[in-house]
Amino acid sequence: MTDRTFNFSAGPAVLPEEVLREAQEALWDLEGSGIGILEHSHRGGPFDRVIAEAEADCRSLAGIPEDYAVLFLQGGASTQFAMLPANFLPDSGTADYWLTGSWSKKALKEAQHYAGRAGVHVAASSEATGFDRIPRQDEAQASEAPVYVHFTSNNTIVGTQFQSEPEVPASAWLACDASSDLFSRPIDPTRYGLLYAGAQKNLGPAGVTLVILRRELLECQVRALPTMLRYATHAEKGSRFNTPPTFGIYVMGRVFKWIQAQGGLAAMARRNQEKAELLYQCLEDLDFYHCTAGEGSRSLMNVTFRTPSPELDERFVAEASQQGLAGLKGHRSVGGMRASIYNAFPRAGCEALAAFLRDFASHNG
Amino acid sequence: MTDRTFNFSAGPAVLPEEVLREAQEALWDLEGSGIGILEHSHRGGPFDRVIAEAEADCRSLAGIPEDYAVLFLQGGASTQFAMLPANFLPDSGTADYWLTGSWSKKALKEAQHYAGRAGVHVAASSEATGFDRIPRQDEAQASEAPVYVHFTSNNTIVGTQFQSEPEVPASAWLACDASSDLFSRPIDPTRYGLLYAGAQKNLGPAGVTLVILRRELLECQVRALPTMLRYATHAEKGSRFNTPPTFGIYVMGRVFKWIQAQGGLAAMARRNQEKAELLYQCLEDLDFYHCTAGEGSRSLMNVTFRTPSPELDERFVAEASQQGLAGLKGHRSVGGMRASIYNAFPRAGCEALAAFLRDFASHNG
Repeated sequence: MTDRTFNFSAGPAVLPEEVLREAQEALWDLEGSGIGILEHSHRGGPFDRVIAEAEADCRSLAGIPEDYAVLFLQGGASTQFAMLPANFLPDSGTADYWLTGSWSKKALKEAQHYAGRAGVHVAASSEATGFDRIPRQDEAQASEAPVYVHFTSNNTIVGTQFQSEPEVPASAWLACDASSDLFSRPIDPTRYGLLYAGAQKNLGPAGVTLVILRRELLECQVRALPTMLRYATHAEKGSRFNTPPTFGIYVMGRVFKWIQAQGGLAAMARRNQEKAELLYQCLEDLDFYHCTAGEGSRSLMNVTFRTPSPELDERFVAEASQQGLAGLKGHRSVGGMRASIYNAFPRAGCEALAAFLRDFASHNG
Repeated sequence: MTDRTFNFSAGPAVLPEEVLREAQEALWDLEGSGIGILEHSHRGGPFDRVIAEAEADCRSLAGIPEDYAVLFLQGGASTQFAMLPANFLPDSGTADYWLTGSWSKKALKEAQHYAGRAGVHVAASSEATGFDRIPRQDEAQASEAPVYVHFTSNNTIVGTQFQSEPEVPASAWLACDASSDLFSRPIDPTRYGLLYAGAQKNLGPAGVTLVILRRELLECQVRALPTMLRYATHAEKGSRFNTPPTFGIYVMGRVFKWIQAQGGLAAMARRNQEKAELLYQCLEDLDFYHCTAGEGSRSLMNVTFRTPSPELDERFVAEASQQGLAGLKGHRSVGGMRASIYNAFPRAGCEALAAFLRDFASHNG
């Protein structure tokens, strides 16, 4: 059926094969124009249609209303870590951050660059226990009047995921780094002020960042900023203030259509739930592996686990790779194993991994 | 020979057909890895090789020594307009800018955001005559002790190009936006402190920006900056502080190899000279068209011209397009026609345009 490896990479990650086949054709000739997608002007008719369709499909997938802007930017979530406070956190204000992993710590660090006297407030943290779980709402403490509350919906490194959004004080709006689970399940965008996601997990190739934000926030001007750091610059020009990452937007648009064809976000969520359960159940049943994320916090996107020893972990990764199960090594900061099983990762790959889990345990247990 | 249109787009622009064919294969499977280039981890072995080769080929093409860093960034030249002064222009200092078109004006505007009391100095400008030419060195006036001198080596909208670098006061180093002519001719990088180029003209797809800078400049810290805006962040991590635009870097690397195979930068310059002369000669000979760029300033990359009337200009663009000569409409801010003939644009396309120029003149002259 395929000559390709099962790719458990945490990102850039596997894309739908149908999308890759379409992209191959479009590289040479975009829809009979005689010119490939990489070579089309970002201001010509064919790309007008590419970006308009990508935005429209994004809106219809997630039910994004017109009072929200949909932006295709560059620089990844790491650039958003700075743009968010640069645009919205005044010297006199504060924001609340939930610390649930390395990425939320990085987001906090950039906010501190822009925070004034009041600083940035850590509303909740699981750092003391190695970010092994998502803190409960009753463990969180809001600051007095934060501008926004920021959280990282899925933590790729430790394999934890928020099961629902954190609560937000009346003064504030919700900001979310959804880089590794956006569009893996239904979402109500109107609960958010701003959502952002690097594309390279569930949405497309590296090099394009999807930002969804409430338009009324664009009127906020807390400080003078260079043109490219202002969300309003990009919103006013429909993501074409300068040349956008045209190919990334094209691929993202094709992924949106693929998600639609699979049945939309509800169908994606069902599939992702089944894929993850298949692995978690197998890991629990075998009594050989240890799941590193706490129950109730486990991610449907990144399944993290260990064997009884680092030596066996290493052997596991090597032998799995020989059997066509690639990218299972855990993040270098935590070790162990990680199976990233985003939207486009096939169920057959989870079944193959489950078989390998059983086989490896029986030979080494 | 090809089913593709002659694409005179100013950028994103035509790429070598060999590179497109390689990219099509790599989308599905990068060098037998069973995983496509869009899906490979940016920290895995296959992408290690992609980025290392791209950098090595870039260095060997242009003779870039080890005391210069080669960076693959995001955000286009527009982001560089801000990063350059953000990193190097202290509140107490100034920089000299040559104004030769819209892009250099935008670069100046971002520098003004960071300039302190002293402001930014315009060393030379042809704005009074619609940027129709590059000012002569003896028309320029340096400021007292600029940190750097910035110029735009090729002006895509008006079709002018510096024939050699501007002079630089002893206190200063040279900074260049070479987005539309980098690697179209030999260059001595050691004459520059920093060179930058959006890829989408001569180097690759939109979404990756090449930056070449003298390493000693990385020690300069004129103000606190968000992490992603610091050149040092990217230099210290080999352009992989966060997920880089992996596909753009891959394609750029293939373009570097293609330039090498054509005979390197000297061969590129010869071909580009011949292609441009073919068009300029035809335009001069016909006594029907008007070249909008002044003699001695004309660009080898963007040939700008007009017919005797805006109505005929419109007819020219429409009829040319019907004959498979696409993208000849001039920039919306200046009108007329523009033939962008970057490295990958084939000589056959220039010959086809010359034939059309003659034909159109004879029917409408």
